[in-house]
Amino acid sequence: MTAGAATRQEGPLALICGGGSLPLTVANAAAARGRKVVLLLLRGVADPALAEHYPHHWVYVGQGGKLRALLRAEGCRDVVFIGTLVRPAFRQMRFDLWALLKVPTLVAAFRGGDDHLLSGVARMFEREGFQLIGAHEVAPDILMPEGALGAAHPSERDREDIALGLDYLNATGRFDIGQAVVVAGRRVLAVEAAEGTDLMLQRIVDMRSNGRLRTPVGTGVLVKAPKPGQDRRFDLPAIGPRTVEGVTRAGLGGLAVAAGSSIVAEPEKLVVEADRAKVFVVGVPTPAQG
Amino acid sequence: MTAGAATRQEGPLALICGGGSLPLTVANAAAARGRKVVLLLLRGVADPALAEHYPHHWVYVGQGGKLRALLRAEGCRDVVFIGTLVRPAFRQMRFDLWALLKVPTLVAAFRGGDDHLLSGVARMFEREGFQLIGAHEVAPDILMPEGALGAAHPSERDREDIALGLDYLNATGRFDIGQAVVVAGRRVLAVEAAEGTDLMLQRIVDMRSNGRLRTPVGTGVLVKAPKPGQDRRFDLPAIGPRTVEGVTRAGLGGLAVAAGSSIVAEPEKLVVEADRAKVFVVGVPTPAQG
Repeated sequence: MTAGAATRQEGPLALICGGGSLPLTVANAAAARGRKVVLLLLRGVADPALAEHYPHHWVYVGQGGKLRALLRAEGCRDVVFIGTLVRPAFRQMRFDLWALLKVPTLVAAFRGGDDHLLSGVARMFEREGFQLIGAHEVAPDILMPEGALGAAHPSERDREDIALGLDYLNATGRFDIGQAVVVAGRRVLAVEAAEGTDLMLQRIVDMRSNGRLRTPVGTGVLVKAPKPGQDRRFDLPAIGPRTVEGVTRAGLGGLAVAAGSSIVAEPEKLVVEADRAKVFVVGVPTPAQG
Repeated sequence: MTAGAATRQEGPLALICGGGSLPLTVANAAAARGRKVVLLLLRGVADPALAEHYPHHWVYVGQGGKLRALLRAEGCRDVVFIGTLVRPAFRQMRFDLWALLKVPTLVAAFRGGDDHLLSGVARMFEREGFQLIGAHEVAPDILMPEGALGAAHPSERDREDIALGLDYLNATGRFDIGQAVVVAGRRVLAVEAAEGTDLMLQRIVDMRSNGRLRTPVGTGVLVKAPKPGQDRRFDLPAIGPRTVEGVTRAGLGGLAVAAGSSIVAEPEKLVVEADRAKVFVVGVPTPAQG
């Protein structure tokens, strides 16, 4: 399917941009491969600095009709959803007529977990004749490779913690919650649900300072992996320099992410950051999906 | 086994007391059944107010030899571990000779999760001829019954959230982490690992105030259940007035705990608190252990 999608890539590529630094990384990678790029920036969510680099339009979350018209006017058939999108606040949303007509679909999508929201939106666009593709298909070089990215490597104990973390994520994937855990000394110390990875890492900092956690500094691993059965076209786990910062602040030994199905934002900066902090960043084989 | 243990209950009962209000509840319940009670209070952990009510001795965590001598001097063969015990700080520990001789066992117990720690310690005591019994065996009236404790009852939607929470806890039981989740709108919002239930509930408060969570106030359930295969002699989930306070502060609709295998501390106070806050407190059948 990846190969099929690749052969169908033609005309300008539309990136519907949420928050974070990933949209620019993906835009640059696609542009470097000779693809014309148009950005559709979600108001209140996308980084305004993105507007400096590529042709763009601002849209509110909920303006499905406007989005559709813009995509058609720009001649884009291939669409990538990229960047973070926590459930938007109502004041950051404007529902146009097209979106309102789709309300039953939207409400159904909202009622489930995040995956349902995204796949519901995806289906709406596909029914309109657009082709939803994954960021990794237009920019395969942003995928995490197997092995260590920087100078540090996980120890044998770290590898045990990584295996336990992957096992946990695999066991809970069907619940459609977060995609990350912190494991140290063969103990799951924190599980990400709705709070996001940054806040979960902050919890490790807090537990260290209130004495609840006595794992030595420099041990423990942040483990991230896609949910089993996750639609990889718009919700791959992503890491970047900020993830490394969070891992360092939490006093962990490093971070492990599923190779081939996680995205690395700003890899050069990430490696500099990891080497300075002496934490490892390692891509590990994705576990069997169960 | 419960019946067998009950017939062997004779002589004074020793309660090795961690933190919280449960030790007093259990001591009172056992004393009300005519059992003589002796408290072994863990320094820096047990509530000093306990010392007013029953014959007692203070011991440091780690003074296994002293504990053993005290139990023998008091003629206690039946021992109950009760109350909270987060991994103690080294300054709150004193290792006596007996404990030092047991260091390999202790270290092995510490390296796994909480269950390993507790069952390792239990085995050490059983090898010395003591009988470790569960708080619910000496005070069955402290167990959560099935059904609602106060005036409020869960709605049909709450029951769906409760079922999802129990399903999650059952799926993750083998990882030996926390025993609680928050579920709202059929979404797992928070998972307890090393941080404890109070801090997990605080996370819901934080996510509400930073806009990450948009679940309406008054919806959502705290679900607590024992881990599958958990040794019920010393680590049953417990709720009390403080749990209800936390649930209320988090803006949830109520809390559900496994009936027959969860302990209720200060039930009268809990009901008053729940009825005032209009939150439900319900005992639900323990799910099939898988």
